[in-house]
Amino acid sequence: MSFRGVAVALVHHPIVDRRGDLVTTAVTNLDVHDIARTSRTYDVDRFYVVTPVEEQLTLVRKILGHWQEGHGANYNPHRGEALSLVRLVPSLEEALRDWGESLGEDALPVLTGARRVDGMSFEDCRALAGEKPLMIVFGTGWGLAPQMFEKGWPVLAPIRAGSTYNHLPVRSAVAIILDRLLAQEERS
Amino acid sequence: MSFRGVAVALVHHPIVDRRGDLVTTAVTNLDVHDIARTSRTYDVDRFYVVTPVEEQLTLVRKILGHWQEGHGANYNPHRGEALSLVRLVPSLEEALRDWGESLGEDALPVLTGARRVDGMSFEDCRALAGEKPLMIVFGTGWGLAPQMFEKGWPVLAPIRAGSTYNHLPVRSAVAIILDRLLAQEERS
Repeated sequence: MSFRGVAVALVHHPIVDRRGDLVTTAVTNLDVHDIARTSRTYDVDRFYVVTPVEEQLTLVRKILGHWQEGHGANYNPHRGEALSLVRLVPSLEEALRDWGESLGEDALPVLTGARRVDGMSFEDCRALAGEKPLMIVFGTGWGLAPQMFEKGWPVLAPIRAGSTYNHLPVRSAVAIILDRLLAQEERS
Repeated sequence: MSFRGVAVALVHHPIVDRRGDLVTTAVTNLDVHDIARTSRTYDVDRFYVVTPVEEQLTLVRKILGHWQEGHGANYNPHRGEALSLVRLVPSLEEALRDWGESLGEDALPVLTGARRVDGMSFEDCRALAGEKPLMIVFGTGWGLAPQMFEKGWPVLAPIRAGSTYNHLPVRSAVAIILDRLLAQEERS
């Protein structure tokens, strides 16, 4: 496979809560750690943590510092290596701008959502990744707000696991989707 | 696919730490939640949390009570539904005994480990799951202790993601492995 580059974005706004109301979710330390490790494992270029809340960005910056320069860097250097993929940005647009600038070309966002009924297949998404740099966009809370799906960006089909239960943690959804899109081996 | 039943076991002893020393790891609240949700999503029969430490079993029992009977049950019933798969046991042998008893036949453990160089393919494991009930066994810390691999039980090939970085969180490894073994759809 020759992909043009894949990035991951974890969005904390605009998000819906369990009632469907528009909210900004809090950044979860563990999401940052787990998704950074999974992204590093699958050779993802960058992992954008998206929140407009300045205090949250400051908090994550402090956590990153601990693992990249502080005591954590000595205790577990693998953690710092994974977290070096993290970029903190106030909006998805800024994530796209930042990554596009470093690539020298525009990247295409691909939205995900557990409650989507449509969306392109994983096979089509792999084909698209051969043509353009793709930023795979994950929501927190109860998912990306509807307005995100009105921008004409492609949407990935939901993970169909075989049960009617549809409440994977976002950390697990990222792992499954990156594995389906990027694993460098036969899926057998 | 017609599987004979799949269970997941998360082992906290015997485990090795980063130096290779034999240890008992602490049960992580988040491992229990995430792996229960992923197990429920993939229609896994049971999720065994294995630790010989009585205080840890008591702690997890308390967490389960909160989500299954306490305030959490009203706030988020999906969580209680996922956690209903959890069984707390002092050893893997007890997990096998308990599940075997409920099935009316012996279950076969399949061990996993990120640092294995051998192991059966995912395709072979799916074929095996058509013949016998399988308990997929995951280690915490730096992995299942060597003594676990000396019992003649089958071992699953490691997840090869394409990079040299090999430090997935166990929560993510469970998600990827269950998806590879159990997703009820074409992997495309």
